Amino acid sequence: MITGKNFIGNVLSATGLKTFKTFNPKENIENEYVFVEASKSEIEVAVSLANEAFKEYREISGNKKSAFLNEIANQILKLDDALIEIYCKESGLTKERAISERGRTIFQLKSFANLVKEGSWVKAIIETADVERKPIPKVDLRKMLIPLGPIVVFGASNFPLAYSTAGGDTAAALAAGCPVIVKSHPMHAGTGELVAKAIIKAAEITGMPNGVFSNLNSSGIEVGTILVKHPQIKAVGFTGSVQGGRALFNLASQRPEPIPVFAEMGSVNPVILLPKALQNSYEEWSDMYADSVTLGSGQFCTNPGLMIGIKSPELNNFIEVLAKKIAKREPTCMLHPTIYKSFETKKEAASVQKGVDVVTKDSNNNVQNFGRPSVLTVDGEQFLKNPNLHHEVFGPFTLIVQCENENQLEEIISKLEGQLTGTIISNSDEVLKFKKIVDALKNRVGRIIFNGVPTGVEVCEAMQHGGPYPASTDSRFTAVGTLSIIRWVRPISFQNWPNNLLPDALKNENPLNISRSINGEISNKKINS
Amino acid sequence: MITGKNFIGNVLSATGLKTFKTFNPKENIENEYVFVEASKSEIEVAVSLANEAFKEYREISGNKKSAFLNEIANQILKLDDALIEIYCKESGLTKERAISERGRTIFQLKSFANLVKEGSWVKAIIETADVERKPIPKVDLRKMLIPLGPIVVFGASNFPLAYSTAGGDTAAALAAGCPVIVKSHPMHAGTGELVAKAIIKAAEITGMPNGVFSNLNSSGIEVGTILVKHPQIKAVGFTGSVQGGRALFNLASQRPEPIPVFAEMGSVNPVILLPKALQNSYEEWSDMYADSVTLGSGQFCTNPGLMIGIKSPELNNFIEVLAKKIAKREPTCMLHPTIYKSFETKKEAASVQKGVDVVTKDSNNNVQNFGRPSVLTVDGEQFLKNPNLHHEVFGPFTLIVQCENENQLEEIISKLEGQLTGTIISNSDEVLKFKKIVDALKNRVGRIIFNGVPTGVEVCEAMQHGGPYPASTDSRFTAVGTLSIIRWVRPISFQNWPNNLLPDALKNENPLNISRSINGEISNKKINS
Repeated sequence: MITGKNFIGNVLSATGLKTFKTFNPKENIENEYVFVEASKSEIEVAVSLANEAFKEYREISGNKKSAFLNEIANQILKLDDALIEIYCKESGLTKERAISERGRTIFQLKSFANLVKEGSWVKAIIETADVERKPIPKVDLRKMLIPLGPIVVFGASNFPLAYSTAGGDTAAALAAGCPVIVKSHPMHAGTGELVAKAIIKAAEITGMPNGVFSNLNSSGIEVGTILVKHPQIKAVGFTGSVQGGRALFNLASQRPEPIPVFAEMGSVNPVILLPKALQNSYEEWSDMYADSVTLGSGQFCTNPGLMIGIKSPELNNFIEVLAKKIAKREPTCMLHPTIYKSFETKKEAASVQKGVDVVTKDSNNNVQNFGRPSVLTVDGEQFLKNPNLHHEVFGPFTLIVQCENENQLEEIISKLEGQLTGTIISNSDEVLKFKKIVDALKNRVGRIIFNGVPTGVEVCEAMQHGGPYPASTDSRFTAVGTLSIIRWVRPISFQNWPNNLLPDALKNENPLNISRSINGEISNKKINS
Repeated sequence: MITGKNFIGNVLSATGLKTFKTFNPKENIENEYVFVEASKSEIEVAVSLANEAFKEYREISGNKKSAFLNEIANQILKLDDALIEIYCKESGLTKERAISERGRTIFQLKSFANLVKEGSWVKAIIETADVERKPIPKVDLRKMLIPLGPIVVFGASNFPLAYSTAGGDTAAALAAGCPVIVKSHPMHAGTGELVAKAIIKAAEITGMPNGVFSNLNSSGIEVGTILVKHPQIKAVGFTGSVQGGRALFNLASQRPEPIPVFAEMGSVNPVILLPKALQNSYEEWSDMYADSVTLGSGQFCTNPGLMIGIKSPELNNFIEVLAKKIAKREPTCMLHPTIYKSFETKKEAASVQKGVDVVTKDSNNNVQNFGRPSVLTVDGEQFLKNPNLHHEVFGPFTLIVQCENENQLEEIISKLEGQLTGTIISNSDEVLKFKKIVDALKNRVGRIIFNGVPTGVEVCEAMQHGGPYPASTDSRFTAVGTLSIIRWVRPISFQNWPNNLLPDALKNENPLNISRSINGEISNKKINS
């Protein structure tokens, strides 16, 4: 069922010479399938097909795009156990996680299907002419969002479904009217191929132009590099490391025509522990954080990798209790030997920094590829001095910083790099006294949480998933939720355009019955011509 | 009244050693004032003040920001004749133009004042908790827009008021809650200083923090380079040449923390002449285009620098009539000798390209700094072959391309670089047959005009001023209209945040009485807690 080939538009193709296999980290063996990396000519054909498809796809109705997205969801479900099986074999994640992530993927596809079916997302803004206006008449101007062009999406290592082949970036781009070329993640090439097959089948069933979707295999950086530099590619979506995201951003911004890269990258997701909350509720908070730090082997972009409190007996007590609970957790399988090794190396590097204590004592009998959850501590002064301690350790890991006082806490927060999330654990009357702390944290994060955990990213319009660099390359956009569609579109204004030639979204009679701003008033009304 | 000094926050300062003067192009003499370029330490103080001011200014209410913006408008009007006089002396533009541009500047400031006073621009999106939801409860999420931080604005050469010191970029950034540091345009340093004085006075009257605004003089690139590379600067606004805008974009994207640059740059604003329109209405169109090409000495970013038609007797006739009308126009003063020389050089370079004819015959008695309007023609094949002909000639200039047929016309449009505007001159039944032409043009521009001229950029919400590169560095944003505020803000989500600690825009009781999306429904309603 898995061929190891690329989808160049609707056609399976494998003219390249480089091959690779995926890896089963739980069994610590290679999987059996052989994947063929896309060749230069295959990449060229995929881009050219996408560019041609764009001419048709950009004009397709919301209803048709909606049918396409729903059919993708349908075809993914039809893959059934075959998908769940390869997902587990290529990620070391559990079957339950696979099923839950598939559910999220389906939900995302359906959310975008609903969005484009309803149609108001194009943000139609109409200002009608005023020929009487002095000194010069006012022209008729009508603005809406239109797609940018062919988009490249890089599959994520830590979300083989929800942020990969048919994940959030792809769903948003297809909803926007942009053809998508996926650079499949090499760890999940089999999962990617099955999902790509589902997308291609859905495209054929719903009559989408050939080239609206392609799926390219690669184990190195060449395929991605060629794609991002290609003049017919108009934007890039990426989820992964700061190193990877920044490399793509650099490539894209150095092109003769620079293009936007939305890269959702690293984050240590600081959690601020204010004194009072720890007095009474340390059991509750230590339970929640033992879960949050170890969830999915700590391989979430919102993993709480940094906790910061003020030195006190209560903080000591919290650290002790949390460390005990986390130490009791069994190590769980990580995505790949390279990720496991990187986790072990970074954890080790952090633990030997000056002033750092490892409060979860590791036993020595580690299982290969299974990450042992760890809690480290350091005092505020050492943390401030040592930028090595500010970087993400991808895995079940958290570093707890013990500050001397509130001023040091504020200094640390102000100097943090940009973050996806920041969390305050506090009593609600206590937090009023820490306004400077909260303000400083707000300025560094995309989402701020009160008395909760950062893991668990709700897919909804009110979600912001993205933050000041390096959390993402452009804090003005989100990677999660239907508003992520605006990464792939741009506004166009039609001036004095004849009504019958306008796109339906802007016509007087409002044939799509969408919500529009007409001379400043938002309604579904028609315009009397 | 003009001191030649920099405003470092509220203080006039001139510790630097480099000095320069502005130039009166009409008289062809230097103006009397001596301007002192900002020194490194002055730049550092300005940025540091802006960063400190941001902590207060980001939290200031919409009402207070509105009062500040309105007071800036008020103080600019109070500058009265002194401003108009220096404007004319530093630009060679007429008094009428100065007054009209001041009117536009005031209108922009008041538009943003109204926007932030009303308050709904923060796009509050609220999704309330659902503790009953299975398998996991839904958290309460509330999203709104918050300012990015200190912004640098580069004054434009061609809009000494409306896109400079207190122009669109500054007004939008101040409205967003971002402190602004203006790198004043060296041609308009006196105009800039007077306007800066008005802004500082307004900031003092309305109690804004010191550092919310600074104005820096410079004649070279050093001041701008230091500003764009400074870690405390969070975004950049620029209006000018592709070369200048791209240089800033490169600096900003190579920073350790890349920041967004919105540069509104060059455009030739293609005008497509379809056959039927020229048959009957060539008099009307040639009148309108003689005006549009020569308006403001052709020094508008929306100047129609390229017209494209299909070879026919009607096109020949139109060219002849337009050329005659344009040749009759008296040369008008350009902004500066360097701009005049660049115009003459580029016009000359275009006129000697293979296949190019100059249809407006120049007399030889040119006045220094006065640009003589010119119409050139070339056939489609030569135009396609010669990229030298695709670039903007800043000034009263238009190149008319004569295509063999519709296919060649489509090919030319598809290969055009990104544009601020594209225009179709046609009968409305005729244009239906040219759908491919219109679709191709739509894909290259930010604003598409039917039977009109591209000059004249209405300041309103439905305006899109920006387009695919190199029209601007990010086609997803506009530089004109109140929606240009979203360049300087980012969303933040509050998760499970106590109501009394939320920003007013997100509180249950909706104290600002703004329009919000609450669980998908848009209203000014309160939320029952």
